[in-house]
Parts: sequence; C-alpha cells; structure tokens
Amino acid sequence: MAHETGSGSACRFLEELSLDGQVRFEESVRKRYVSDESAHVGRLPEAVVWAASTDDVSAVLAAANDRGIPVTPWSGGSGLEGNAVPVDGGIVLNTAELTDISVSPADMQATVGAGVVYDDLNDELAAYGLRFAPGISSGEVATMGGMVATNASGFNAVRYGETRDHVRRLEVVTADGRVVECGRGVVKTSAGYSLKDLLVGSEGTLGVVTEVTVGLVGIPEHRRAALVTFPDRESASRAVADAIGSALVPGALEFIDELSTKMLNAYRDDAPFTEQPTLLIELHANNDGIEEDLSFAKAICEDHGMTTWEAAGQENIDEIWQARRDKLFATRSYREEWEIALVGDVVVPISSYPEIVGAVKEISDDLDLVTSCVGHAGDGNLHFTPLVDPDDEEMVERAHELNERVVTRAIELGGTATGEHGVGIGKRKFMADEHGAALELMQSVKETMDPNGILNPGKVLPERE
Amino acid sequence: MAHETGSGSACRFLEELSLDGQVRFEESVRKRYVSDESAHVGRLPEAVVWAASTDDVSAVLAAANDRGIPVTPWSGGSGLEGNAVPVDGGIVLNTAELTDISVSPADMQATVGAGVVYDDLNDELAAYGLRFAPGISSGEVATMGGMVATNASGFNAVRYGETRDHVRRLEVVTADGRVVECGRGVVKTSAGYSLKDLLVGSEGTLGVVTEVTVGLVGIPEHRRAALVTFPDRESASRAVADAIGSALVPGALEFIDELSTKMLNAYRDDAPFTEQPTLLIELHANNDGIEEDLSFAKAICEDHGMTTWEAAGQENIDEIWQARRDKLFATRSYREEWEIALVGDVVVPISSYPEIVGAVKEISDDLDLVTSCVGHAGDGNLHFTPLVDPDDEEMVERAHELNERVVTRAIELGGTATGEHGVGIGKRKFMADEHGAALELMQSVKETMDPNGILNPGKVLPERE
Repeated sequence: MAHETGSGSACRFLEELSLDGQVRFEESVRKRYVSDESAHVGRLPEAVVWAASTDDVSAVLAAANDRGIPVTPWSGGSGLEGNAVPVDGGIVLNTAELTDISVSPADMQATVGAGVVYDDLNDELAAYGLRFAPGISSGEVATMGGMVATNASGFNAVRYGETRDHVRRLEVVTADGRVVECGRGVVKTSAGYSLKDLLVGSEGTLGVVTEVTVGLVGIPEHRRAALVTFPDRESASRAVADAIGSALVPGALEFIDELSTKMLNAYRDDAPFTEQPTLLIELHANNDGIEEDLSFAKAICEDHGMTTWEAAGQENIDEIWQARRDKLFATRSYREEWEIALVGDVVVPISSYPEIVGAVKEISDDLDLVTSCVGHAGDGNLHFTPLVDPDDEEMVERAHELNERVVTRAIELGGTATGEHGVGIGKRKFMADEHGAALELMQSVKETMDPNGILNPGKVLPERE
Repeated sequence: MAHETGSGSACRFLEELSLDGQVRFEESVRKRYVSDESAHVGRLPEAVVWAASTDDVSAVLAAANDRGIPVTPWSGGSGLEGNAVPVDGGIVLNTAELTDISVSPADMQATVGAGVVYDDLNDELAAYGLRFAPGISSGEVATMGGMVATNASGFNAVRYGETRDHVRRLEVVTADGRVVECGRGVVKTSAGYSLKDLLVGSEGTLGVVTEVTVGLVGIPEHRRAALVTFPDRESASRAVADAIGSALVPGALEFIDELSTKMLNAYRDDAPFTEQPTLLIELHANNDGIEEDLSFAKAICEDHGMTTWEAAGQENIDEIWQARRDKLFATRSYREEWEIALVGDVVVPISSYPEIVGAVKEISDDLDLVTSCVGHAGDGNLHFTPLVDPDDEEMVERAHELNERVVTRAIELGGTATGEHGVGIGKRKFMADEHGAALELMQSVKETMDPNGILNPGKVLPERE
C-alpha cells in the first residue's frame, strides 16, 4: 500500500517489504544523512533504512532497482569526500547495525559485518594478540564497510598495506539484490577475476558490502618510536624519501608540519610536540633487532640535519598517537570562526615527496591561505588542510583552487588524487586526468554491474560525456 | 590482400598490418604453441605474431576483433594449466620480446615489459639491492606478463605477497585495441575502480598486458634457513599451522614430503635432503634479531617432534633453493616411462593444512597412485603431482579423479582450486563450485570487456549455461 503523502512518497514501498530492520521517513532522521565529515552537502533522502541483515539489504536493493530509486549505502558517516552522502534523494541504506564479529585466530583472519567499527574490532582482537592493521585516524567511528568502500588506510599502511591488502572475501549484494560471495578466506588465490578487488574502493557504486573477511597480523612484541624535529619541511621530507628508499620498513612514518604541531599542542595540554617540522617514526618487531633498526633510522635523520630526537618507549607511544589522531579536531578548533575547507589527500612516488610538500606550501602562500599539513609520509601520502572563513566565498574558492593545483601537481608527478579518502563527490573532476582512457572501462563496468544506475549515484565516476 | 591458401588463410590480414614485429604462418613455428608445461594440448593456431611494441599488440587486437578472430596471448610458455595454449585456433600473440626494464630505485619500483623474465629482472635489480619478491620455481622462463596473467607467486609470497600485491600499474591493450593505463606508480590509491586488480589473474581474457610497474623490496641483509625433518607429514604440517598462527612471518616456509625428498636427491648428486617429511624454513631480516626468530621457529618444530634440524647460513641457502626449484624436472625423471599427469595447486586456511596434506595421501592411496607433494606451506598452498603411465588411460583417469577429489575437499574447507597456477583449461570445471553466484558477475564483466569473445577463449570461465 503506497502512501501518497509526505516527501518520501516514492519510497513508501519500503513499508511493504518484510524487513528485520527499520524504515524511517521522519525529516529529523533523514536530515542526519545530508552531510559527513566533509563540507559536501547532499540532498535530503526520502527514506532511511537500518538494515538488520543481509536479507534486508537484498530486499531493499531488489525493490529499489525495480523502481529505479537511488540507494546510497551509509555506515560510519566519517567520510571526507561526501562518499556516503546522498545527492539524488532516494534511500539511505544504513549498514551500521551489521556488527557481527567472528575471529579465527588460527587462520589469522576475522569475518565481520559491514557496520563493525575499526577500533571495536581491534579491541576484540587484542585478546588474541592480533590486529587489523591499516591504522586509521577515524577508528572510533569508521566502519569496516566504509573502509572497504574507500580502500581506507592510515598510519600503519606503510608496513601492513591498505584495506585492500587485507580483504580476502566479501559478501556483496548486487544492484538487483543478488547476494554473492567474492573471494575466499585464504591467503592467496589465482581462481578467476578478483571481484573483491574490484569492489574494494568502489564506494558502494557497484554493490553493497555486507560482510568482510580480513587477514590479521600479530601485535608486535616490541614497539619503539621517536619524535624527530628538523629545521625545515624540506629536510624532514627528504629524510622520509631516504628512509623508504633505503628499504627501511617502519610500522609508521608520519610527517607533521610546524603549524600542525602548534595546532596539536593548542588542542591538548599534554600534547608532546616540539613546534617544528616533525617526523613520528614507529618501528615494530618481535625481537631485539628493533634497536638496530632504530639506530639506522636515527642515522638517516642525522644525515638530514635533525634538530631533536625524542625516543618514546612502548608505554607512551599510544599517547603520542592519540594526540596525532586528534588532528582533524585540533584543526577545527584552531581559529574559532574559521572552518576546514577540505582535507587534501594526495600520494606521490616517494622520491617526489619533498616536491609535493614544497608545492603545498608554495601554492598556499601564493593563494594567501593558512594550510596545515600532515601525512602518512612513508607511503608518499600527504594531507593538507586549508582553513577558511566559511562566509567568505572568495576565500573558500581559493581553498578549492589550492586543492586543484596540488592534485594536478601530484598527478603530473605520477601520483594519485586520493590515497585513502576515496573519490566521493569531491575528487570526481580529477578522474579523467588521472585515468585517461581507463575511465571508459570503469564506466562500462559500472553500467554492467548497475544498469539502472541506482547505486550511490553521483559518486566516483564523472558523468559520461 | 588476403591469401586463400594454407591453414592460416583467415589470418592473412596480419600481413597487411604495419607491424614492428613479425608474423609467422609456418606449421613448424605454429606447432610450438599447442602445449605449455602441462599435459593440456590445444589446437594449432593459424598464425603467430611476435609483437615488438605495444602498438603491434594494439594493431593485431583491433584487426582481429573486427574479424572475430581469437587471440591467445603467450609469453614464457611455462603455464601449468594450459593458460596460454590456444584452443580455438586463431592468432597466438607472443609478447616475449617486450623486454624493456626501467628501474626507479628511489621509488622502490620498476617498470618492465610483459616479456621480461622473472630471474632476469631480479638479476638486474640485485645491483640496487632490490628484488621483485613473489619467488617462483619457474623463474628462469616465466615472464612478468604471465605472472600478472595468473597472479603467480611461490616461495616468498608468505612474507611478501602474490604478484597482485606488488603490481601498481599496468599498460593493457583492450580487445578492440585501445591502450589503457590501469593504476598509478604509487604505493596506494583510492581513486576509482581498481582495474589493475581486475586484470591481474584474468589470464589475458579481459585484455593483453604489455607493461607492468611493480613495487620492489630490499634484499634482506640477513638470511637464515633450516632444513627440518619430522617423523610424519602430519607433524610437519601441524608445525606449519602453528608457526603461522603464532604470527611468525618467515621469508619462506616450504613443505616437502618424503617422496619428494627422494626424487630431489635422485635428480642431483649434491641435493641436501634427508629422506623424511621436511620443512624448509627461511628467515629474513636487516638486523641480528633474526637469530631470535630462528630460535622461535626451532622451538615450534621441537613442539611437533622434529627429528633433525640442519641450519643453513647465507652461503648455502641458494643451493638448497636451486635443488628445490628442480622439483618439476626431478619428478619427471623419477620413473623414466611415466609422466606427470597434472600439478595440483590448492590453498586452504592455514589451520586446515594438516587436513589437506592428509587428504592427498589418503585419496592417492585409495586410487593406488604414486603422488609426491610439495607446498608453499606458509600460505596454506599445497602442490601434488601424480605420476602415470601415459599409455594407461584408466590410470590417467584416476589421476584426474585425485585432482577432483582434492580440489573439492579444499573448496569444502573454505579454500581455493588454485593458489598460483591460474585456472587455464584445467580448473574451469571448479569455478562454479568455488564462486557460486559470483560467476555470473565474472561472465558479465567478460562480456563487457570482450564483447566479441576474441581474448583467450576457452579459459578461466566455464561456458555460460
């Protein structure tokens, strides 16, 4: 029975589905989904479904596909490019309640629902001495579904890899509601097309991920870290390139620029940073060889003129990381009346890291912007965060110009428009430049997997010309 | 000008293309391509093209696609499942002469032609202290194009991953001759659909890979190895599962059954094996912590009742590996009048490794076959090699029954039909069992990327029902 009243009238068919979860039409509920952690604002969805099972996801998709109604999957809402923000109304399909966790410690893997939060998973895995390892800043809210959707990663990818590198198997619901298993719960396979790798990073535009089997790593027995400062950002970034090019495999290798150290210190009384361009180096090992690696890392920093080296033991590493993880909040609170225009996220080949770090500073100065930088430097990944007065349209425009110029430079250097945040709304315009003729193939794959175009429309791929 | 004479008449259009490379129609040439290292025999191709450039590959594909002529890419010819054997005549497109190598040591990556041989690449990389790391047995002949096609791996995947894990960028020619770049020469990216991951393992059925950019690893400063024997295969395989489940990350962890040690000793005078179920454990590190890891590995082997532990230093590790790499030839020469029926290649979750090792023995005994086993055990990967009298059809039939029963058991255990050899001809029949509903999606992707079905027909996917 379809109701003809209310803004959600096209989606009233949802009431007729037999679902385990809930359907909500109230505007107060729907309004929560028009934005994520970015500045992108979408269009009010007509309905929100909290799926309680894979069957729910299947039922909603099958019915929506029949009717050509857009479906935008959502779970943690911590995206930085509007990845899960509906731009074409329709249904928001919230998978946050798919929270089952099943750990197979002997196989070093876990099978988890799309709604499982990153930190929750790692809390549960700690009892087994295991870890899901990409190491993301937003681990308190980001879900496994979202991490798969954007191929998320962070601090520890330099040693352990991106989400993709850990995903062994996905349960996915197709646009027309079929439930398929992609991949197997094994370390390696050469059996056919790797659909799970096609799905990872596709941001819900090819299918909706409901369950994930990921490989795990052992929690290292030994961890050592050092906060190292340098006279300038060039020296710090050259030390990064040199360390990685020397085949050092750190557990993490972060770049934090001078402005970021100031922001972090201002945000927390106990923040440990010296206000200079800084590297945070962490090493992992299961044996005492870690001290030798630490000496090697220190020698490289000395070669590049480091000014201070402050070693941190196992006991205070986590405090340093907690301070670093607050970067987004620290930036937001740095100038009360200003806001973050966007969070840049480029990757370049590691030998070009000094160049891209310099380019952000140069372009930012040129555009008269206040821009802080941090980066998972060991991967060649740099984040940059211009602050703007949101009421000053011209200033906001300059921040977007900064992003365009830096992304264009990164692509020219052989790099990528996004290392871990995904394309979402904000990076679509760079896809033709980055992918060239391959973009047509992506569009063909999209049309094959989602012929009615209902899955997260307006994301990842630009409109076909 | 099309010639109407000779078996290659449908392919005479090749003479009209302006190619940098060569076109050959002689039967003596074409005959070399009807089989690879497996027992699968294909159908004589009508022409062979040695491509000398990406443009050649593009020209051949565009013209063949217009005419609906099958094209089977070929490079090293070392496949074990008939992966590159033409089964439908047409053109064999040999990419073995695409042998450019460009190393960027500072970026820890290399860009190489599809015809570059694995060992040749590593010989060139050694000067930089770097390595392309999957570690395959057939490294003297296998090419990068073939490794990408089958997502090949081997000894060192347990630490460094499969070919997929190293591929950053591919240059691919589509069925209709478009040249596309998939992926970027960076460590990580979240920019759109990962076409390079779709192409890796697709065995030339979705496009022809002409160039590959791979990530490299540092050659470890320290290597230690040990040959460890056990009273029975169960103890050896339980030690493997225990080591991996304890988060040991070996450089290699090989299982060699008693019959294989006998074959290897018979093949080479200097083969170092004690004729018992054996593990070959290798550890890698850049510091002295390696000794501690070695003690840890030894303690696990002691827990499982090891009978001998023979340590090998840096100086003689390579000799042990050379002996192990000869396994295929050693097996072939074990009984002069017999042949290898097939080389099995399953992977199971590591906790099931003892069970699959036991299953091969049990099923082989049941079928009265002589079957040797080796495996990249740390990955849960097991190879099994039944020997048969090729003139005894019933015996050959029993060998295929062994394969069917072992693969079916592996899939039941959550495993895969092929860990590193690919699907080719031989494993197509298992794809429905392994992938279920996902197989339809694979077929849709194939139809999208190769609408005329010209690319390596008869491989990977079973006929659509």
